[in-house]
Amino acid sequence: MEALQIFVAIFILALASSFTFASDPSPLQDFCVAINDPNGSAKLAKADDFYFSGLHIHKNTSNTFGSTVTPVNVAQMPGLNTLGISMVRIDYAPNGGLNPPHTHPRASEVLVVLEGTLHVGFVTSNPDNRLISKVLYPGDVFVFPVGLIHFQYNIGNTYAVASAGLSSENPGVITIANAVFGSNPSINADILAKAFNLERKMVKNLQSKF
Amino acid sequence: MEALQIFVAIFILALASSFTFASDPSPLQDFCVAINDPNGSAKLAKADDFYFSGLHIHKNTSNTFGSTVTPVNVAQMPGLNTLGISMVRIDYAPNGGLNPPHTHPRASEVLVVLEGTLHVGFVTSNPDNRLISKVLYPGDVFVFPVGLIHFQYNIGNTYAVASAGLSSENPGVITIANAVFGSNPSINADILAKAFNLERKMVKNLQSKF
Amino acid sequence: MEALQIFVAIFILALASSFTFASDPSPLQDFCVAINDPNGSAKLAKADDFYFSGLHIHKNTSNTFGSTVTPVNVAQMPGLNTLGISMVRIDYAPNGGLNPPHTHPRASEVLVVLEGTLHVGFVTSNPDNRLISKVLYPGDVFVFPVGLIHFQYNIGNTYAVASAGLSSENPGVITIANAVFGSNPSINADILAKAFNLERKMVKNLQSKF
Amino acid sequence: MEALQIFVAIFILALASSFTFASDPSPLQDFCVAINDPNGSAKLAKADDFYFSGLHIHKNTSNTFGSTVTPVNVAQMPGLNTLGISMVRIDYAPNGGLNPPHTHPRASEVLVVLEGTLHVGFVTSNPDNRLISKVLYPGDVFVFPVGLIHFQYNIGNTYAVASAGLSSENPGVITIANAVFGSNPSINADILAKAFNLERKMVKNLQSKF
Amino acid sequence: MEALQIFVAIFILALASSFTFASDPSPLQDFCVAINDPNGSAKLAKADDFYFSGLHIHKNTSNTFGSTVTPVNVAQMPGLNTLGISMVRIDYAPNGGLNPPHTHPRASEVLVVLEGTLHVGFVTSNPDNRLISKVLYPGDVFVFPVGLIHFQYNIGNTYAVASAGLSSENPGVITIANAVFGSNPSINADILAKAFNLERKMVKNLQSKF
Amino acid sequence: MEALQIFVAIFILALASSFTFASDPSPLQDFCVAINDPNGSAKLAKADDFYFSGLHIHKNTSNTFGSTVTPVNVAQMPGLNTLGISMVRIDYAPNGGLNPPHTHPRASEVLVVLEGTLHVGFVTSNPDNRLISKVLYPGDVFVFPVGLIHFQYNIGNTYAVASAGLSSENPGVITIANAVFGSNPSINADILAKAFNLERKMVKNLQSKF
Repeated sequence: MEALQIFVAIFILALASSFTFASDPSPLQDFCVAINDPNGSAKLAKADDFYFSGLHIHKNTSNTFGSTVTPVNVAQMPGLNTLGISMVRIDYAPNGGLNPPHTHPRASEVLVVLEGTLHVGFVTSNPDNRLISKVLYPGDVFVFPVGLIHFQYNIGNTYAVASAGLSSENPGVITIANAVFGSNPSINADILAKAFNLERKMVKNLQSKF
Repeated sequence: MEALQIFVAIFILALASSFTFASDPSPLQDFCVAINDPNGSAKLAKADDFYFSGLHIHKNTSNTFGSTVTPVNVAQMPGLNTLGISMVRIDYAPNGGLNPPHTHPRASEVLVVLEGTLHVGFVTSNPDNRLISKVLYPGDVFVFPVGLIHFQYNIGNTYAVASAGLSSENPGVITIANAVFGSNPSINADILAKAFNLERKMVKNLQSKF
Repeated sequence: MEALQIFVAIFILALASSFTFASDPSPLQDFCVAINDPNGSAKLAKADDFYFSGLHIHKNTSNTFGSTVTPVNVAQMPGLNTLGISMVRIDYAPNGGLNPPHTHPRASEVLVVLEGTLHVGFVTSNPDNRLISKVLYPGDVFVFPVGLIHFQYNIGNTYAVASAGLSSENPGVITIANAVFGSNPSINADILAKAFNLERKMVKNLQSKF
Repeated sequence: MEALQIFVAIFILALASSFTFASDPSPLQDFCVAINDPNGSAKLAKADDFYFSGLHIHKNTSNTFGSTVTPVNVAQMPGLNTLGISMVRIDYAPNGGLNPPHTHPRASEVLVVLEGTLHVGFVTSNPDNRLISKVLYPGDVFVFPVGLIHFQYNIGNTYAVASAGLSSENPGVITIANAVFGSNPSINADILAKAFNLERKMVKNLQSKF
Repeated sequence: MEALQIFVAIFILALASSFTFASDPSPLQDFCVAINDPNGSAKLAKADDFYFSGLHIHKNTSNTFGSTVTPVNVAQMPGLNTLGISMVRIDYAPNGGLNPPHTHPRASEVLVVLEGTLHVGFVTSNPDNRLISKVLYPGDVFVFPVGLIHFQYNIGNTYAVASAGLSSENPGVITIANAVFGSNPSINADILAKAFNLERKMVKNLQSKF
Repeated sequence: MEALQIFVAIFILALASSFTFASDPSPLQDFCVAINDPNGSAKLAKADDFYFSGLHIHKNTSNTFGSTVTPVNVAQMPGLNTLGISMVRIDYAPNGGLNPPHTHPRASEVLVVLEGTLHVGFVTSNPDNRLISKVLYPGDVFVFPVGLIHFQYNIGNTYAVASAGLSSENPGVITIANAVFGSNPSINADILAKAFNLERKMVKNLQSKF
């Protein structure tokens, strides 16, 4: 009996979490709160499903890159399910806090600087690989098109903060260096040596650091 | 000769402005900067096409509703074209600044409070017409699903400011009272009297004010 | 045992009803009949899933607005699931039967008059709020773009009937006056007083009527 | 000079007609009236762009199949552009008027019978090729999923009329027999003989009739 | 207890197979492996979910049409779920192996010839029904637009092989002759006689062969 | 006069090339051939618009990575416009020919090995960055989800060839190493040093090589 209950519970989690992400392009009802609870339904949606708090708090940026991303997507706010939008706050340490080159496989991002001075940019696809960049000050807005590699870099000597909207309830993030040199398991070092024009032992060394 | 030039120029504006808005759901190139210039092309895109400034400035809210919306959509930032995202800043006067009940016919909106205290809410569609509302403080986030009537109301005694992301490059805004009582030309007063359960002369009076 | 069965049954309803609305933009199979029955599957679809009857019957229009909407969407016809289309019949009482100003948050609507004479219109979004209207006779067709406020008003002295197609399996309806003045719970009267330029007590009076 | 004017005029028609059909899935503005006129713009849209008349008229069905389809799509009503919806009226001669087996490559169709008695059906895709059919009377509604072969057949001894909504501004129609046996130029008779298990001369005979 | 287990198992299959096909247009996560197993989840995806083998094998073409289609869609490769792409290999017998006229209701197809000589074509929709065709040799590529009737015919005296990509995880196939003359149950012979300009007994004869 | 002609010609190229890419998600007509010629129209489409040749030819792989990609997208085959599908052939030199880590910002890819032995893989997004990889032999198929970093590496001692379908008419390619270290202009070396945990002079050295 218990086995069956566990079986059903696992099933519920599997299906519910699968379902959670099943229709970005255009909703089919007012909303469709993502739930992990079999008793839930749209009728029972409550204000807290559409709510998240704490985005005003300065986050600790004492980490490798000197930056911290605080996401508000469907995992944090179930009411975002099917609505095709989400948000992030990004904190940057003074003098070089970096949101390192990354892509969002499923969203464009429009970012506004709240505090500080950021050098931001994105690189267009092959064959041009043009870097389109700008220095941003408070109140400046910049957009990063879907799937393109982009970054933000704090070139000021004060903390910097940005807020951004993204065009998916679950945009995904791929930090380039980590995905390439820190994947699990590792990508064959010969591949990375050839791709990045590095010596094999340098690649191995990089992989050990990520 | 001049006639032809004017003809061509009008044509350019008509086509270019038509084209500007031709593909929200998913881009077909890295970006497609909206242009009113026949010499423009994606190759020539520059950083300023993806840039907008001034969103940090406190806006004057001395108007009927005590609120000011500053949009950053494809009309202000041509690089947003085809990317399915845009942004707004909203300023609210103290003690009752109101972003009155409105809908976005083409976007969901996720809003974060930067300053002040806002009472926000949206109403679900028929037949329930449930009001889902919340009082928000700085750092609080709320989402308004596409097409639903929603509002924000400054219930604090200080200025309030919010920033929001919207899931379309051109979300559209329909301020309910203005569209209903202030359309041009006016909606037949008998219709509005019946719909709103108002006397006809009250409707006429309202229409004269909008 | 019974508890588990109830648990599973509730779960089935929750998931199935959630799933029902999971993919408007483009189907991924011939059809995907919306079911509340765990034994159901596409293989077992039967003709009745794609069928609805009774749209020829003149409906009673003895109600506040003098109009009755008979929807045929995915809730009435499960075979519509994933197909992005639905239908309604609308009956209008003579001399002023009104389908009051409303929006469909998820569909455009194309309407044909079957009997009678209708004054119809929609209002464009801000800042223009243009009223685009027309008097329609039998055989006349009009389209209401997605998300815009629109209405139909029987200006003839006979019954009127219209039939309409909508571009979603579940278009949703927001009757403006009801959503604004009749939400549950009520919107703060100060907000509506300011938005509609009405005295607070007038708002309270209106709210009591809806 | 004249050559240039003609050149520009042809260009206008080419571009404008191309543009006409550029964004079904979700509009990017209130509407985007399809124009063949370089002076046109959304601002200048008028009620007649959203209007079509004459759908109440009984059409002549004295033709091969004993049926006549009267479409109201973007070609007839320019305001449908980008809205993802269109409509048709179908007239059927008594005793066997047939809307022969056909598909709509870009739309699902929901049909309501206004007069008469229709045997309707659609066939599911391989490998099952199930016929899902029904006899419809006035007020009965049936849906034909996108891309599937379907038909309507007047089995009554009176005229029949149906009205249908389709989920695209330009659904397209492929009448199976005509596309297969009446294409221009003809499909190689060996191919059709093999596909339809017919003798080659029978195929040639059929091709001569279409 | 067993009854309940069967009940749950059927439910799992129903839901999981329903869910399998719930979001072509744009994924909402890196991938969403289609599962028939309640323990499965995205976290547990393994390389084999994204893998299929055997497409290099020459297939037996000793059948009615002298052709064999080997699909690799979401039913064969669960990792394709939500990704909007699939593949097929097609083998054609020498001297007339035929992939008979058919449509894909949910996908465009781009085909490359690997071996042999194929006469391929598609027919445009009404009213033109133009046949657009070409003879293809190894290395030649051709595209068949979504929903249009198309075919490939081996006009060489050697085996032919083609590989194709399709723009849906589950494109569907409707073999025209089979769907029309071999549906289950049969389409009324009077309908087909009229549609194809055939004698009723010829239709009955054809129906008996499919 | 000549100036005007040039002006118009530039305009034509700008508009036509813009238009070319305006509607992936779902076509609005049978096809919409991408043209750079103002006299073109869908009516005049010819078989060659849907045709490309030469994909059987072994390509020279004497280059840095030992691989050559031959695309067949809308730039090579104008008939692909609006159809959401394209194709590539990839040749790999023996003993280490590499299609280096890259993403397609707008397409998933399903690949089949025609000759040789490939080690292929993709890396999931943060935080897991799982490498999902496989060794593929002729006839093996693998899928790379949209936006994820992936690669193919020839681990055999013979030439290898693969063919792939992609779910966009214009998928885009971002070769990670080139976009990061070879952008034009270069990304600030401090950013890359921090992101990749490399010394600044190593970054400068890498940038000089790309």
